[in-house]
Amino acid sequence: MDSKKSDAVGKARPGGRTARNTAAIFEAVTALVAERGHGAVTMAEVAERAGVAATSLYRRWGDVRVLITEVAVDQLIHERPLPDTGSLAGDLSAWASTIAASLRSPEGASFFAAIVATAMPQDANPAARGEALKRRIEQIGAMLQRAEARGEKTPALADVLDHLLAPLYTRALFGMPAHDDLAQRLVKRLLAAS
Amino acid sequence: MDSKKSDAVGKARPGGRTARNTAAIFEAVTALVAERGHGAVTMAEVAERAGVAATSLYRRWGDVRVLITEVAVDQLIHERPLPDTGSLAGDLSAWASTIAASLRSPEGASFFAAIVATAMPQDANPAARGEALKRRIEQIGAMLQRAEARGEKTPALADVLDHLLAPLYTRALFGMPAHDDLAQRLVKRLLAAS
Repeated sequence: MDSKKSDAVGKARPGGRTARNTAAIFEAVTALVAERGHGAVTMAEVAERAGVAATSLYRRWGDVRVLITEVAVDQLIHERPLPDTGSLAGDLSAWASTIAASLRSPEGASFFAAIVATAMPQDANPAARGEALKRRIEQIGAMLQRAEARGEKTPALADVLDHLLAPLYTRALFGMPAHDDLAQRLVKRLLAAS
Repeated sequence: MDSKKSDAVGKARPGGRTARNTAAIFEAVTALVAERGHGAVTMAEVAERAGVAATSLYRRWGDVRVLITEVAVDQLIHERPLPDTGSLAGDLSAWASTIAASLRSPEGASFFAAIVATAMPQDANPAARGEALKRRIEQIGAMLQRAEARGEKTPALADVLDHLLAPLYTRALFGMPAHDDLAQRLVKRLLAAS
């Protein structure tokens, strides 16, 4: 637990070796999840591919599912910057397109499954539960706030969640991920109702 | 595998000892899932509580998750008969109330989690995937067909799925199960839009 390798993935020195190791760990998780699905990835494999000690991964994340969910949420936020098109219709349209496309991809589907597995009622990590949805709610809030500042008529945040995100998630969950034309119809219907 | 106990849970003699054993097995599963959540139930425990051989459970269902999902779908269909109130608004209102109440209960939440676990992309039982949603789609289809026969204006089946069932499921998934007033607002919004 006190080896050099363990130190290398600690949180003490952001920007240096720690940041490089975290990047390597996250890349290893992304590649492994894309290759075989989140359910078949172990800490030992992540450690081997990232070139760090498995013990240090356990110390920092405790369980491989916690690590996978952290990577999934990180991808959600950083690889897909929030659209800022100048109108709510444009923002929601681009946002829904990106989510739908992600849920149709093997990697996106695997990360979604990882997030759902963490959100499950019987899961041992209640702190992580709803974390991904919290980020989505923050994204919706930011888009609505900008629209309000522009003087646009806006739906309630809960309506965006219930009538845009929920259909995309539920269809993905049961193996029928939405195509882009459906995503766009959901956006139009949401805005027409508000 | 060829013991009397094994025979007793085979499919050969419906209505007799097989049916009684199936009922005992389903009751044992329901009780165990309610007590501890679907993730912590084993075939051995189900076998012990139901008074049958674990080997015969493995022979018939293969995996405890397959058995739990079958019980979950059975409960969905038989313990909650489809409402028939004479109007689509009444039917959907009662249907949504029942689903929301179930998702708020520990037992219903556990069975929902079991269904979701089976629906997950990485799951080893692709045949079971989407099975529960298929039953829900059949229920929606039956309510819409009756409404059409009465000459009522009806939403598309996909809209009931996307704007009534999906919000209830997504909220339950992330630990915010819907209360009945929300379920009723979803029904009103759906019917107003169609």
